[in-house]
Amino acid sequence: MTTGRLEAFSDGVFAIAITLLVIELRPPEVDRGSELAGALWDLWPNYAAYLVSFLVIGVIWLNHHRVFQQVVEVDGPLLVLNLGLLLWVAFIPFPTVVVAHYLGDGGAAARTAMALYGGVILAAAITFSGIFAWVTHDDRLLHRLPPPSVRRATRVRFTIGIAVYAVALGLSWVSAPLALAVHFAMALYYAFDQATVPADPTAEVTDG
Amino acid sequence: MTTGRLEAFSDGVFAIAITLLVIELRPPEVDRGSELAGALWDLWPNYAAYLVSFLVIGVIWLNHHRVFQQVVEVDGPLLVLNLGLLLWVAFIPFPTVVVAHYLGDGGAAARTAMALYGGVILAAAITFSGIFAWVTHDDRLLHRLPPPSVRRATRVRFTIGIAVYAVALGLSWVSAPLALAVHFAMALYYAFDQATVPADPTAEVTDG
Amino acid sequence: MTTGRLEAFSDGVFAIAITLLVIELRPPEVDRGSELAGALWDLWPNYAAYLVSFLVIGVIWLNHHRVFQQVVEVDGPLLVLNLGLLLWVAFIPFPTVVVAHYLGDGGAAARTAMALYGGVILAAAITFSGIFAWVTHDDRLLHRLPPPSVRRATRVRFTIGIAVYAVALGLSWVSAPLALAVHFAMALYYAFDQATVPADPTAEVTDG
Amino acid sequence: MTTGRLEAFSDGVFAIAITLLVIELRPPEVDRGSELAGALWDLWPNYAAYLVSFLVIGVIWLNHHRVFQQVVEVDGPLLVLNLGLLLWVAFIPFPTVVVAHYLGDGGAAARTAMALYGGVILAAAITFSGIFAWVTHDDRLLHRLPPPSVRRATRVRFTIGIAVYAVALGLSWVSAPLALAVHFAMALYYAFDQATVPADPTAEVTDG
Repeated sequence: MTTGRLEAFSDGVFAIAITLLVIELRPPEVDRGSELAGALWDLWPNYAAYLVSFLVIGVIWLNHHRVFQQVVEVDGPLLVLNLGLLLWVAFIPFPTVVVAHYLGDGGAAARTAMALYGGVILAAAITFSGIFAWVTHDDRLLHRLPPPSVRRATRVRFTIGIAVYAVALGLSWVSAPLALAVHFAMALYYAFDQATVPADPTAEVTDG
Repeated sequence: MTTGRLEAFSDGVFAIAITLLVIELRPPEVDRGSELAGALWDLWPNYAAYLVSFLVIGVIWLNHHRVFQQVVEVDGPLLVLNLGLLLWVAFIPFPTVVVAHYLGDGGAAARTAMALYGGVILAAAITFSGIFAWVTHDDRLLHRLPPPSVRRATRVRFTIGIAVYAVALGLSWVSAPLALAVHFAMALYYAFDQATVPADPTAEVTDG
Repeated sequence: MTTGRLEAFSDGVFAIAITLLVIELRPPEVDRGSELAGALWDLWPNYAAYLVSFLVIGVIWLNHHRVFQQVVEVDGPLLVLNLGLLLWVAFIPFPTVVVAHYLGDGGAAARTAMALYGGVILAAAITFSGIFAWVTHDDRLLHRLPPPSVRRATRVRFTIGIAVYAVALGLSWVSAPLALAVHFAMALYYAFDQATVPADPTAEVTDG
Repeated sequence: MTTGRLEAFSDGVFAIAITLLVIELRPPEVDRGSELAGALWDLWPNYAAYLVSFLVIGVIWLNHHRVFQQVVEVDGPLLVLNLGLLLWVAFIPFPTVVVAHYLGDGGAAARTAMALYGGVILAAAITFSGIFAWVTHDDRLLHRLPPPSVRRATRVRFTIGIAVYAVALGLSWVSAPLALAVHFAMALYYAFDQATVPADPTAEVTDG
């Protein structure tokens, strides 16, 4: 298995999961035409859930490439770990639609829905950290390991990320919108972090 | 991140969004078999919406390649801008189905549906212009900028496009079918424009 | 636009359309567990429609590659023609589900459904012939045209194909199952034709 | 047809089928918010079916690459056999949703659903063995056949796999959960088998 094939398959799953999010959005049924605008506004939990999940999957895709562009060899455990990540990513549309369905209710259902959502994102984040830990645990898969300081910094970053997702999960039982806002902020942060940090110089060896 | 990977992921989203359009089309329920032909004709707003959105996404795909075949380096802001474009493109099936659902009603609902549709297309067009502005704002991403006259001409073309989409958005409140017809005409125009204009000579450097 | 990118995007649409066919298949609702087997058998029109459409799209994919592996340059009209083909292919799931829904009724609805199906397949076949006619009308896109005898034979083959699809369309008003059987036979024929005819020797120049 | 194109198309179908599994998961409708957690737990047959089918398709994908990375030439029968495999793989979401729908019922419906599921997996496994048998029946497609001992061992492995799937199919009429557990165990076994067995040394010639 070459990295290219693993990435192509993973990209397929990312692209489909990110695009499937929208098919949960159904046209609202209204009797009088003048009510459609209001009915469309009332779908705001759907738009919010769509936007956050789109960013979340988009950021996982960005980070996936960031890691895999340094991987020159794919072994069995990495295949299984990657399949585990895809399992969670492909699952994201379900908690997304549950949140979209119940976020507007505000009460216990919204908090339960957000807890499901937060749990799935946390599971994806932990699996992703597992991928990073595996590919950097010796120099067999990368051929040239990033310097220890970079690896340490990245692990700290992953750990902080997991901690924040765990906090977001806990926040679900306090306030569903707040928990969703934390997920949104995290995704935005990672997206812009990708946007400002220069490409990892160690990546260039295998890039092409 | 290489251009190839960005394009492959974007192509995946384009291909899925363009193909998902049809799953909103449901077989009409009729009691007597002789009524099916009529019921299938009554779905004309669905066919119209499908056709226009198919062309719109197809043209965005064509233009996306036209721009990205000249891009030799992908930086962070370009990644985020491209993710923004994909967000709008992946969202297009929703306004499409809202239009398909309400266009036949003719009244206020049809106009509201078209305004939603026009707004999303306008947002996609503005994001696309942002991508073009970013990749041509200096020679870092293209390595060889198109001559100033070509860049100016393309920017004028983008600005006119955005203006027409804004007009189509305004027309939604006047006549929904007319607004949809403008979107159809725009997509046809861009498709045939791609079909007659020779490939940009500056593209050839990075083409291969 | 390189052939590779056109093919990758087209393959994406083919793969999605062929895979989306199954999501129209819904689990039957039964009250008593012992009735499920019977209810699953009663879905035979769905399985038949799924199988035929799967083969039809699969064969279009095979033929698409057969033609495009000889194409070394993509021009504007080819892009637009290819987008037209994808429009019909991505649309196939709709007539498929209409046929699946009404084939079991046997009467006028089944015939109307098959006429819709036959019309879409015929339109796809005509568009495909248009692609072949365009890429072989001079040596600009292929760089090395197949010998006149091969081109003539292929055109005759396309014309016969279109004639058979037209006959199948006409047969829809006589017998819906018979018309579907003709589509099935055509798809099987093309699949095995691909399987026995050796790869076109002229293809090898651009193959790799 | 090059191996690369066949793999890209097949990967597309695998990625879509594996990602489509989740769209069958619908948010449960509850009246009181406090009931959502319970309603989400009640969906356990859906999660179980999703997980098993995800692993099954994932493992077919892994094995597909394992075989095709050794294939240097694609002939007609291989194309048709591969299309047959994709037909079954793309069909898997249907038995999955039938199982998800009826597994919780426990009775005759659950057993019928599992028999449908087991039959489709068995058909996919037999088709896959057909692919392996075809590509190894002489040295035309692989250019360098694996040594007879390796081929023999792989055929024994395929035969055992088919036998276990046949047993799982038979078990459906005894106990639906047990049959699903066998499918789960098989998929896990193959996944970890891939994860521990070193890459086939004969694969390396065509790899890259």
